[in-house]
Amino acid sequence: MITVEQVRDALRGVMDPELGRNIVELGMVRDIAVEADEVSFTFALTTLACPLQDRMVADAREAISRLDGNLQVAVRRVEMSKEEKEQLLGQAKGEKEKPLAERMNEIRHVVAVMSGKGGVGKSSIAALLAVLLRRQGNRVGVLDADITGPSIPKMFGLHELPKTSPLGLLPVETKTGIKVMSINLLLQSEDQAVIWRGPLISGAIVQFWSQVFWRDLDYLIIDLPPGTSDASLTVMQSIPISGILLVTSPQDLAGMVVRKAAQMAFQLNVPLLGLVENMSYVTCPKCGERIDVFGRSQALETALQLGVSFLGRLPLDPEMSSLCDAGQIEDYAAEAFKEIGEQIVARVPDTVAKPVFE
Amino acid sequence: MITVEQVRDALRGVMDPELGRNIVELGMVRDIAVEADEVSFTFALTTLACPLQDRMVADAREAISRLDGNLQVAVRRVEMSKEEKEQLLGQAKGEKEKPLAERMNEIRHVVAVMSGKGGVGKSSIAALLAVLLRRQGNRVGVLDADITGPSIPKMFGLHELPKTSPLGLLPVETKTGIKVMSINLLLQSEDQAVIWRGPLISGAIVQFWSQVFWRDLDYLIIDLPPGTSDASLTVMQSIPISGILLVTSPQDLAGMVVRKAAQMAFQLNVPLLGLVENMSYVTCPKCGERIDVFGRSQALETALQLGVSFLGRLPLDPEMSSLCDAGQIEDYAAEAFKEIGEQIVARVPDTVAKPVFE
Repeated sequence: MITVEQVRDALRGVMDPELGRNIVELGMVRDIAVEADEVSFTFALTTLACPLQDRMVADAREAISRLDGNLQVAVRRVEMSKEEKEQLLGQAKGEKEKPLAERMNEIRHVVAVMSGKGGVGKSSIAALLAVLLRRQGNRVGVLDADITGPSIPKMFGLHELPKTSPLGLLPVETKTGIKVMSINLLLQSEDQAVIWRGPLISGAIVQFWSQVFWRDLDYLIIDLPPGTSDASLTVMQSIPISGILLVTSPQDLAGMVVRKAAQMAFQLNVPLLGLVENMSYVTCPKCGERIDVFGRSQALETALQLGVSFLGRLPLDPEMSSLCDAGQIEDYAAEAFKEIGEQIVARVPDTVAKPVFE
Repeated sequence: MITVEQVRDALRGVMDPELGRNIVELGMVRDIAVEADEVSFTFALTTLACPLQDRMVADAREAISRLDGNLQVAVRRVEMSKEEKEQLLGQAKGEKEKPLAERMNEIRHVVAVMSGKGGVGKSSIAALLAVLLRRQGNRVGVLDADITGPSIPKMFGLHELPKTSPLGLLPVETKTGIKVMSINLLLQSEDQAVIWRGPLISGAIVQFWSQVFWRDLDYLIIDLPPGTSDASLTVMQSIPISGILLVTSPQDLAGMVVRKAAQMAFQLNVPLLGLVENMSYVTCPKCGERIDVFGRSQALETALQLGVSFLGRLPLDPEMSSLCDAGQIEDYAAEAFKEIGEQIVARVPDTVAKPVFE
């Protein structure tokens, strides 16, 4: 004979398509009873006008019948009380809870890409890492924490306005299915300046984490702006980061600023995954000469000084620049990045950055 | 016969070396009297222990005797009252005055170098402009407004701690006499991170303007950090800028962020001097091939869109990177920059950014 627990487990396979979670997790399944060949339960909906209820009920019947095809299934539909609804939607009065999206999201690893210095290709590396992880079959998101100089949407050719849902803002998906949230997706024009002081910058970043409904992600990549001020502080203090990837260029001038960024991570106790050198050299397309455009590489010394792993060098590639401008970074073969990217992934701690919602 | 006015004018040639202003301006000369062949005046010192008083008195005698070699000069030395001293040193109670350094500084033109985007070479361009102006014989200062990623001291090879004076912090001078103030000069180690939120960043910048005793400058160049947040806002709102120089790189990605910076300047009503493209190309040292490392140049289109002058393109030069890392930017010939720099200078409005002190 079928047990109540077996029924409950079977119903975990039924999703509320709007809320993106199974109906058991959402507290919608109550009073399961099994008597002879009949299973009954109460299905508490947020509203009896829910247009998706028939589909969910059909899914529930199907899931239970898979336990035993001869079972009769009786479903009593009720509407949640106002309090139950508020609790589900995270607006319970007097209770300072996390926003609904943050409670609903299940994000396994959060990798922040940081440099301290601008223009060393943080955003390119963040995008290449996201593309690599996606090609490996992962569910990947990119949170663009550069509020005043966001580059991510342009690289992926995104212009769509993010949609809203009862659970929060929905990230925009790239053509290969990478989820992206960036201030530039919310502006009327990508050229519009965001002239905000620190508290607004921080507020936007916190919202991108807690009020964007990322759903389940294997990896969330955060593209940090230059500097060790508000944006970096907020990311390190408010988001559970698995590790920080440092990006530098060959110049010692960049190295100096990257060492500042590393100091910040040390002070805030966020693990460093390693250091990548970008823009290391250019190969002359005519004669094949390797040109050290930014002088002699200093990245290995910097990594040694910091006691972090040196993960490799990436050349400047005009093709990559052009694909970024064209919004086609997903079409870039990125052969030179493959090994570096795999090294990064291997170093991400296998811990869940955030407890699973339940 | 000599008049009192002639004596006063002659004494305007006598400087207080500590305060950097002439003794008439400073209110130190009183009760000038001319009788037959004797000139007398009261010399009010901030302290009778002033170690420089004999030198100033000798200078005064010398200046008067240049009017007429036969004149006797009698100088009565007195000490200023506490109130007089406080007024001179700008601490008069109940009076909300500008800091002393700001009142004493006389800065003719202030040029801010901005990009919005990091790593396009704002600091290099700011430094090259300062070097060019200095070579032309100007009195030049560089205010490094990049608090979290300061590059200026390293480029000029500066490691000295700024000295203090009764008038405020003294900028550090480069070997060719460019005055520099940067947060990195005030840190124990150049690798130290400055983990500050916006208000502290803004506070530091305001202090670099109003509490640093720059003295008389023909040009003060301000190196802005990336972004359109606190640092840029504070510079544009608190410092009388003659004009902003925009720097971009060939990538349209950079162009987009530069357009944001330009929008900010428009909104805050600060004039734009024009746009320079940096890192335009690399010339292969072996075969001479010109390589567009950051893709096709988009800077001219950007300048046209913004309605600002396009001032030219600068190639990536490995020699320049190496000299910057070595702190020897003043030794860089900068042939490619000369014409661009002259165009910039020609566009700086011929207005005095700040009323002359008196």
